[in-house]
Amino acid sequence: MTTDAGSPPLTTAQQAALTSGGGFWHTTAVADLPQIMLTDGPHGVRKQVTGADHGGLLDSEPATCFPPAVALGSSWDPELVRCVGEALGDESRAMGVSVLLGPGINLKRSPLGGRNFEYYAEDPLLTGVLATEWVRGLQSRGVGASLKHFAVNSQETDRMRVSADVDERSLREMYLRAFQRVVQQAQPWTVMCSYNRINGVHASQDPWLLTRVLRDEWGFAGLVVSDWGAVVDRVAAVRAGLDLTMPGPDDTGDEALVRAVADGTLDPVALDTSAARVRALVERAVAALDPAATYDADAHHALAREAAGRGIVLLKNDGDLLPLPRHDVTIAVLGEHARTPRFQGGGSSQMNPTRLDDALTEITALAGGPVRFAAGYAPDGTADEQLAAEAVECARTADVAVVFIGTAQETEGADRESLELPAAQLALVERVLAANPRTVVVLSHGAVVLTTPWDRAVPALVEGWLLGQAGGGAIADVLFGVVNPSGRLTETIPLKLAHHPSHLDFPGEASHVRYGEGIHVGYRGFDAREQEVAYPFGFGLSYTTFAYGDATATVVDGGIEVRVPVTNTGSRDGREVVQVYASLPGSAVRRAPRELKGFANVAVAAGQTADVVIRIARDDLACWDPRLRRWAVEGGDYLLSVGASSRDLRTTVTVAVIGDDTRVPLSAESTLGEWLADPKGGQVLGQAFAAAAAQGGGGLAGMAADPQIFTFLSGVPLNRMAAFPGSPFTDEAVAQLVAAANS
Amino acid sequence: MTTDAGSPPLTTAQQAALTSGGGFWHTTAVADLPQIMLTDGPHGVRKQVTGADHGGLLDSEPATCFPPAVALGSSWDPELVRCVGEALGDESRAMGVSVLLGPGINLKRSPLGGRNFEYYAEDPLLTGVLATEWVRGLQSRGVGASLKHFAVNSQETDRMRVSADVDERSLREMYLRAFQRVVQQAQPWTVMCSYNRINGVHASQDPWLLTRVLRDEWGFAGLVVSDWGAVVDRVAAVRAGLDLTMPGPDDTGDEALVRAVADGTLDPVALDTSAARVRALVERAVAALDPAATYDADAHHALAREAAGRGIVLLKNDGDLLPLPRHDVTIAVLGEHARTPRFQGGGSSQMNPTRLDDALTEITALAGGPVRFAAGYAPDGTADEQLAAEAVECARTADVAVVFIGTAQETEGADRESLELPAAQLALVERVLAANPRTVVVLSHGAVVLTTPWDRAVPALVEGWLLGQAGGGAIADVLFGVVNPSGRLTETIPLKLAHHPSHLDFPGEASHVRYGEGIHVGYRGFDAREQEVAYPFGFGLSYTTFAYGDATATVVDGGIEVRVPVTNTGSRDGREVVQVYASLPGSAVRRAPRELKGFANVAVAAGQTADVVIRIARDDLACWDPRLRRWAVEGGDYLLSVGASSRDLRTTVTVAVIGDDTRVPLSAESTLGEWLADPKGGQVLGQAFAAAAAQGGGGLAGMAADPQIFTFLSGVPLNRMAAFPGSPFTDEAVAQLVAAANS
Repeated sequence: MTTDAGSPPLTTAQQAALTSGGGFWHTTAVADLPQIMLTDGPHGVRKQVTGADHGGLLDSEPATCFPPAVALGSSWDPELVRCVGEALGDESRAMGVSVLLGPGINLKRSPLGGRNFEYYAEDPLLTGVLATEWVRGLQSRGVGASLKHFAVNSQETDRMRVSADVDERSLREMYLRAFQRVVQQAQPWTVMCSYNRINGVHASQDPWLLTRVLRDEWGFAGLVVSDWGAVVDRVAAVRAGLDLTMPGPDDTGDEALVRAVADGTLDPVALDTSAARVRALVERAVAALDPAATYDADAHHALAREAAGRGIVLLKNDGDLLPLPRHDVTIAVLGEHARTPRFQGGGSSQMNPTRLDDALTEITALAGGPVRFAAGYAPDGTADEQLAAEAVECARTADVAVVFIGTAQETEGADRESLELPAAQLALVERVLAANPRTVVVLSHGAVVLTTPWDRAVPALVEGWLLGQAGGGAIADVLFGVVNPSGRLTETIPLKLAHHPSHLDFPGEASHVRYGEGIHVGYRGFDAREQEVAYPFGFGLSYTTFAYGDATATVVDGGIEVRVPVTNTGSRDGREVVQVYASLPGSAVRRAPRELKGFANVAVAAGQTADVVIRIARDDLACWDPRLRRWAVEGGDYLLSVGASSRDLRTTVTVAVIGDDTRVPLSAESTLGEWLADPKGGQVLGQAFAAAAAQGGGGLAGMAADPQIFTFLSGVPLNRMAAFPGSPFTDEAVAQLVAAANS
Repeated sequence: MTTDAGSPPLTTAQQAALTSGGGFWHTTAVADLPQIMLTDGPHGVRKQVTGADHGGLLDSEPATCFPPAVALGSSWDPELVRCVGEALGDESRAMGVSVLLGPGINLKRSPLGGRNFEYYAEDPLLTGVLATEWVRGLQSRGVGASLKHFAVNSQETDRMRVSADVDERSLREMYLRAFQRVVQQAQPWTVMCSYNRINGVHASQDPWLLTRVLRDEWGFAGLVVSDWGAVVDRVAAVRAGLDLTMPGPDDTGDEALVRAVADGTLDPVALDTSAARVRALVERAVAALDPAATYDADAHHALAREAAGRGIVLLKNDGDLLPLPRHDVTIAVLGEHARTPRFQGGGSSQMNPTRLDDALTEITALAGGPVRFAAGYAPDGTADEQLAAEAVECARTADVAVVFIGTAQETEGADRESLELPAAQLALVERVLAANPRTVVVLSHGAVVLTTPWDRAVPALVEGWLLGQAGGGAIADVLFGVVNPSGRLTETIPLKLAHHPSHLDFPGEASHVRYGEGIHVGYRGFDAREQEVAYPFGFGLSYTTFAYGDATATVVDGGIEVRVPVTNTGSRDGREVVQVYASLPGSAVRRAPRELKGFANVAVAAGQTADVVIRIARDDLACWDPRLRRWAVEGGDYLLSVGASSRDLRTTVTVAVIGDDTRVPLSAESTLGEWLADPKGGQVLGQAFAAAAAQGGGGLAGMAADPQIFTFLSGVPLNRMAAFPGSPFTDEAVAQLVAAANS
């Protein structure tokens, strides 16, 4: 029974109604419980205004459009992300929204993923650290987060049916790891299950995922909500631990639940538990509501600009073409994207900004000299010869040209088919370069695009992602050095799509997608395959330079504390993102050559040195052991490489870590080699050999002494030895050995 | 009951005894049935002579050691392989062996596979075509083949436990395909199950594999024998369709079978069927025995030399350094491998040759001038400075140097850890080259080794594999042009191991190995990833040159007949291996960029033109359709590229192929997009939309008209639409639509 002090118990029908929505964006009002509102995020509050409660994607109340995760994540700055979370919390509260549907923390498995712009990174640690702060920020305002999409929702193609076929180690270490971190460190009010299946089971009705892992292992105390339309079978969903099916109402499903309780196919405790969780969420949300709450739109716009500036990644800056001088030079601003910014992606996260800055206006405002504009290509991004010719002419007579190019669209619901930028825009870049070699290219897009080979001729390349409503100003800030760029890539830019670790298996076929690269997602795969890339994970330039001293490392609380002095050796203040990657040479398990284990985002004034301390929790050293089905830290000498990107490692230190006990008990299925490698097993087996020899049955022991034959035998499970005539390993003898070895 | 005319029925205990071995290499004599002998192959008859019936690997009666599969396969010559099969049949018969345990036809998934030398190729078509002829040849002599190891036995590491985790399409198209071909085209007397598990199930007790696929689908009429020691559970094995457990006797297992029949846990028909198959095998074998049979050891040695010569692959021949002149030049033969040949691998296939030629002796015999020898490195292949210095000196004063280098060992039971040749031998090559640029390198090894970067400086490189007992003469034949080399690579030589498609997932861990590259095995993976390789699949040089005319293609019997004129444009007679690769641009399923679909091995006299005809059976155009769980030919314009290697395609022709019907019936799980794409479904759904609109419920139809929203909706299964308020798609309505669409 779903009760709380003073409320009468709910009937089964009321419980059922409570576990489905009362509309598209609200829970169901039941008995004394009011509705609360859940609405789309994550980079801004998308509260629909129309009466229509389904479509109406483009019709929402204005709110601040902060940088989508692709840009926010590129800041590599947990504190900044927390500030954005707080601001989103303030806006949600001011708009009466109790749960903001974010953050989106799926791994960017393939650069083609249509929703990558909503996700942070190809690395689970980075994703988890940033998302934890986002949730903390949001929830500090009395607004609940919805950690999504749980889990392995790495593609849009066939997203409602596709089964992500992935082994448990890869699942745990890559696709669930960020969820685990955020749940354990920030306790989001809700977790949203994904549309897809995982190893054949719908996430919405997977008891292993929603109950055993999420609650029993991780200690999640909140509510599991479905993605909108993700539930196939309400009874199976409730049984699995899905508490709230959205949208609603779902009379058919409610009735099915009531029937299932009545006929005994659903444990009433399951429904009662889910209903209680909805009640708990509603009560917590209602207690936090404040009709008088407001927010400062100007301050939030300023924060959006700061965050956008921090998300911009400077990819190239040959001859220090950037920053542009603010004295009297003529600047040609080229490309429609400069005037008509792409600032967010399509789909459920698409919202109405409170205002929208464009780069052209903001550059003009900051420039010390004349700024000329030419669109360069048609509004839809395609070729227009007249506009191109005008742009080339504009570049020819300017001191410097800044060309804005980008993709037309990324959207939820569809993966991309290519990583290429529009050909017309690349052609424009080539012509502008020919007219004026002092050309800066600014990119606008939501997920990785190829930069090869055209970037070779471009002296300065600014990765502008999708930057939210204040992105235009942020780009101007970076171009003129008002902001010294410090953004870093959260995903590898490959030389070609075919090189990507996911390439052979994306987006799958016949409603299955094999996660064939296993743990080798993103940079882990490029590194393991020793492949060159265009720009590596963690990469980004600055207008200043940083020198690294020697790193030191000590074991602290079973984890590792790394210290490294980082000196700003240039003449401008700047931020460095100090990254720590770990390796374990000789590891007993397959590992990526380098794994991000920690990072620090530090502001260092020109000429100053920061003593950077990065702590790696012991949990973050663990691998999933598929034999024991638990996390375990392998003992050994870990190499910790510290540097400015995954391929720009400046200093390496070794630290000895004592491992967890990972002994697997010997069994009849253990091989002769495993028996002999085990101290106790080897002793027990040696005695058995000796006894057999004493009884004239020593043939096998004699064979084991021959190196070539031992090669054969060492891989043979003990219980398979019995097949060989003369073997002393009868079933009974093996059972006795097993008992002795594990005693 | 296992009966035949005149024999009394066997008891259950007799049946049980019959389904396990009567010793290490024999079946059990039961009632009137004698024992027959099964013994190791495949490249020679390994009939053990010792009383010891287990170990004694090195102790077998002399027989001809033909080239192991790595070299025999490199001939790309089905007729030659058939001749070798016939000779092996003759030797088996002469030695009283009824079943020769071969051919080994597992795909070379990774170049590290310890048993690769026993397998043919990284391509299933090539493997299947060659193995079919081997079986036909062998069985034409009244000796049974044992097609092995069924299935997916692509590694030695943990081979008795490891589960090959592989999706069904990859399994069918890559790992089972050659087995299917050989079974259907040559009906081997026996198939040998492998040690490993497949998707968690031991091959020895997998009813899907051993009965449903092998017998029900492919029509296998013979007997399934276990690999030696592969059976874990006799009852489960017999139930699955495993007929003969080897070795034996296995009293415990026999008793378990009797008990299982008695207590009803095993259908007596299963045991009866297996026992009947053993009886049928024994009777067929006994009928073919001929105590008077002999073979001509000299003729077989000559055949072994011919086959070895055809398996040698000429990888480089800059400046036509080869063939060596047979007039008065001084040749320095360097390297212990020239004197002490590596001619076979280790493990169950290792046998005692009737004689053994070494290259040094054979070169001396063919040379027209003086031949000097220096060992160059220690007998175990490691560095010996004095020997190296002698070799360098020997090279300096010779007209040409021929350096023999190779690996120390490849063996069953252990995968390799590296593709590198011994450093000492590469160092020797470098020094010899410095002393004499006219240096030929001859390689001896069982599986791919890296040739990068040291081969750049080597003008002539001869891939000598493991060539069997007459390999020394074959190498001499090729060096002097007595044989014009025509061998081709059956596996890609990569630039580095990290590039290999299997690299991230080999050999797996915790007794599981993910076949993450799916269908992209070998060259398919290198091509799909657009990776450079050292030497591509199908590559091999000749002492003459061939020009290709324009290919033509027509559809014949639903398959394709390709014709291409190939002209020998050089001055020597030679053989060309004409290869046909197919692509289907715009295919509905993921495909490798090129797949070998046919080939012809043609001898063309100098100056002559051969009109080459290559037929591709329709079955070989089919892909496995995981939705329909059957093979299907996709319709479309196939590109057929014809050339001398997978990356040396000389002429391409397009042919339109009419596809099989692969319509999947529409269901409630079919997406809106699938409904609309289906002619009938689209019509039915259109009517439903219209009806809903007429009743004022047209919101969804209206939404579907908006392109952005349609992107969302098109991926939504019809039965998930009901979740959205106002949807006309109730469960009942969906059921009616499904019925209407499929009517």
